[in-house]
Amino acid sequence: MIELARSSPVPLGEQIVDRLARLIESRQLAEGMRLPSVRQLARKLKVGVFTVVTAYDRLVARGLIEARQGSGFFVAPRPNLPAPVEIEQAGAPDTVLGLAQQALEVDRLAVPAGSGFLPPAWLADAVTPAILARVARHAAGLFRPSPPQGEAGLREQLADRLRHKGIQAASGQILVTFGASQAFDLLARALLVPGDAVLVEDPGYFVLFAQLARHGLKLLPVPRLVDGPDLDAVETLCRLHRPRLMFTQTLLHNPTGSNTSPAKCHRLLGLAEKHGFLIVEDDVYGDFAPDQALRLAQIDEFQSVIHVGGFSKALGPGLRVGFVAAAPAIIRQLMEQKILSVLSGALLPELVVAEVLRSGRFRRHAEQLRRRLAKAQGLARKALTAAGITFDEQAGAGLFLWGRVPDRTDVGALVRSAREQGILLAAGRLFSPGGGCATHLRFNVVHAADPTLSAFLRPRLAA
Amino acid sequence: MIELARSSPVPLGEQIVDRLARLIESRQLAEGMRLPSVRQLARKLKVGVFTVVTAYDRLVARGLIEARQGSGFFVAPRPNLPAPVEIEQAGAPDTVLGLAQQALEVDRLAVPAGSGFLPPAWLADAVTPAILARVARHAAGLFRPSPPQGEAGLREQLADRLRHKGIQAASGQILVTFGASQAFDLLARALLVPGDAVLVEDPGYFVLFAQLARHGLKLLPVPRLVDGPDLDAVETLCRLHRPRLMFTQTLLHNPTGSNTSPAKCHRLLGLAEKHGFLIVEDDVYGDFAPDQALRLAQIDEFQSVIHVGGFSKALGPGLRVGFVAAAPAIIRQLMEQKILSVLSGALLPELVVAEVLRSGRFRRHAEQLRRRLAKAQGLARKALTAAGITFDEQAGAGLFLWGRVPDRTDVGALVRSAREQGILLAAGRLFSPGGGCATHLRFNVVHAADPTLSAFLRPRLAA
Repeated sequence: MIELARSSPVPLGEQIVDRLARLIESRQLAEGMRLPSVRQLARKLKVGVFTVVTAYDRLVARGLIEARQGSGFFVAPRPNLPAPVEIEQAGAPDTVLGLAQQALEVDRLAVPAGSGFLPPAWLADAVTPAILARVARHAAGLFRPSPPQGEAGLREQLADRLRHKGIQAASGQILVTFGASQAFDLLARALLVPGDAVLVEDPGYFVLFAQLARHGLKLLPVPRLVDGPDLDAVETLCRLHRPRLMFTQTLLHNPTGSNTSPAKCHRLLGLAEKHGFLIVEDDVYGDFAPDQALRLAQIDEFQSVIHVGGFSKALGPGLRVGFVAAAPAIIRQLMEQKILSVLSGALLPELVVAEVLRSGRFRRHAEQLRRRLAKAQGLARKALTAAGITFDEQAGAGLFLWGRVPDRTDVGALVRSAREQGILLAAGRLFSPGGGCATHLRFNVVHAADPTLSAFLRPRLAA
Repeated sequence: MIELARSSPVPLGEQIVDRLARLIESRQLAEGMRLPSVRQLARKLKVGVFTVVTAYDRLVARGLIEARQGSGFFVAPRPNLPAPVEIEQAGAPDTVLGLAQQALEVDRLAVPAGSGFLPPAWLADAVTPAILARVARHAAGLFRPSPPQGEAGLREQLADRLRHKGIQAASGQILVTFGASQAFDLLARALLVPGDAVLVEDPGYFVLFAQLARHGLKLLPVPRLVDGPDLDAVETLCRLHRPRLMFTQTLLHNPTGSNTSPAKCHRLLGLAEKHGFLIVEDDVYGDFAPDQALRLAQIDEFQSVIHVGGFSKALGPGLRVGFVAAAPAIIRQLMEQKILSVLSGALLPELVVAEVLRSGRFRRHAEQLRRRLAKAQGLARKALTAAGITFDEQAGAGLFLWGRVPDRTDVGALVRSAREQGILLAAGRLFSPGGGCATHLRFNVVHAADPTLSAFLRPRLAA
């Protein structure tokens, strides 16, 4: 019935599973038929009893055979399976959910030029097999519940890392979250009620806008200038709408790559105090900026500022490890909301990030990423310019380039036809809560010099 | 300055870190002082250059020293650290958030009798070092983004596992979540609006009630009887309030341990169809029940039923892997809400659970847990009865026992004074959305026979 290839590199147990699965799926072994006992099959195939036990277990797990108490293993009944339904995509690539989802399903793309993440090859040196092995060695610890505030060792490492950036936070002032995204979600749910007004940057991070809008919040767009948010606009909006909160990226702003100047940082904190709003400082790109660059949290000391960071950019988006540092009273509210949303965090990724930080590798890794990104910026700018993209600013830094297509371009059509060729583009319109940026695109500099992208853009932008 | 113990089992690099950290923290090395260069120190201590580089890196990561471009390493300035602030507990143990948090911070407890989780020692055989090593070997894959619907291989394994329980779901009909908790959160946010009425069981899962209440939903308590929910009450509540959704646990109901009878399953589905409400079948304890036990999803085929499961009970709450199986249109809505809450899931725990299921170990592990729990039930019941707890039902199964203290007992005071002795108790009141169960306690059978608990309860219940 079964022949095993003893010289094959495929383990014998796996061969048994494959052969039996094929016989069952092709109906050569009929429903309800009894399989040889473990001992019989082991003897017949000249393999160990354990090999057969394991193989049968896997076939049971796949639903192909079933164990009947005391009488052995039988071919399982073959139900008429429902046709497999895949939720292919949440929407077209020129919609918020479509772009967010497609940037995460990167395996389906040839050129993820609209993605906000680094490619795995840039990240693989940070979480080494040795680090994973060290975490796995303490496997007993993996079965305990994870404390809802975040694993204590990780919070200590995060406090160290913040201190290195000049931000003084005790580990008890830190809440670990599933990425910065969950931090934003918890902040909106714990601190705001539907109808509240919040200041956001225009352009800014598109998923955040959709998150806030879904909470029923009123978004007040603040133009993002080359040296930070337009503070005159902030002042006017405060007088008109009395916002509760402002979201801003001090360093390497997404999508423009700009930094808020130290002078503006000071003035912004003054406005927050004067008008009584809190500032959420989103520092998710902060590891691509020098540690000594000025951040709001450094000068504010958690009076008005809530600092959000994470490792989706420098270690990988699949880890889902982010954090909030804030005044203890705010952390407590966020933690309660976290318990009522997801109960707690995932211990395994938290331990991995703690170990990466503890090993001291992270700093060197981040430095290396900065150097590589600076080089990629130059190459991407050159390639995009040659393809017909123009740029408002002379230089840039970080992960993104924020460019323009010629005014007459139908950007929606461009993005959709790019997607048909496996190229993900990020339409500028999504980044503008005020409805602007219709002819902008945001490019990931790592993928923007890809010749496939140039070949796609050049004829269309010249037309 | 530094002496290394060459015969010590502590690696030399770690010794260097420890010695230098102590010198800096005790201020024997002053702020701003220059450290020997890497080469100098390596030569002096007769260790490799790499050992010193790594040691310095770790000291930099701890904020104790800093690197200045081109001029070497210096003792970092010592800021006046804010006093460490710990968010000790969200509330007293007789509150919803207090109980939820304390059950997760199990290290602080001597007897977690009110916890809803198994102890790590019962779980450690499922996720073996070999499984972790197998996942770690594909480390390159750990840096990619995780698809928001959940890792495809895990969804296939989950579909297999459901098929084994008689539930037909394609992998595309499954959404992976951060535990069942996130599934409930996403369901409430995607399918309901504040003010909507939902049917819940009384008694039932206390955190769920707080989650739903925070969404502004109106809870309609349905008495939980020994054979399932009181369907006459369901019918009356439907006529009065037109609920949109019902939450129910078909098997091993928390806290009573009861199962819904097959006849009631059928009648309940009829009521859902007649009154147009959806049923969320919470099967998180389902792995402690036989696979062939009847579940609503098995007979309904995702017309009215949304099936929720997870691995917090049988593999460990720190993994945060749960899932929803439902009609594709519902899965799509949930996935969109997931993107707007946490962007995506965590790849590492998803790969670990997929590997455990693939290996075929899970089924045997769950069987073993069932046997152990059955034994623990008997012992716990005997010990609690001797301590003065009474039980309404003759027999039980699963993780919990739902007992009563004498009528005159002040349960709040009992729970708080237990906590002072490191004993976590779960007050029945929290489990009753209708405000009943004032003299009940829910016991985790694994911890309920602990002599410390008996010694605490006996004099207080006899008084």
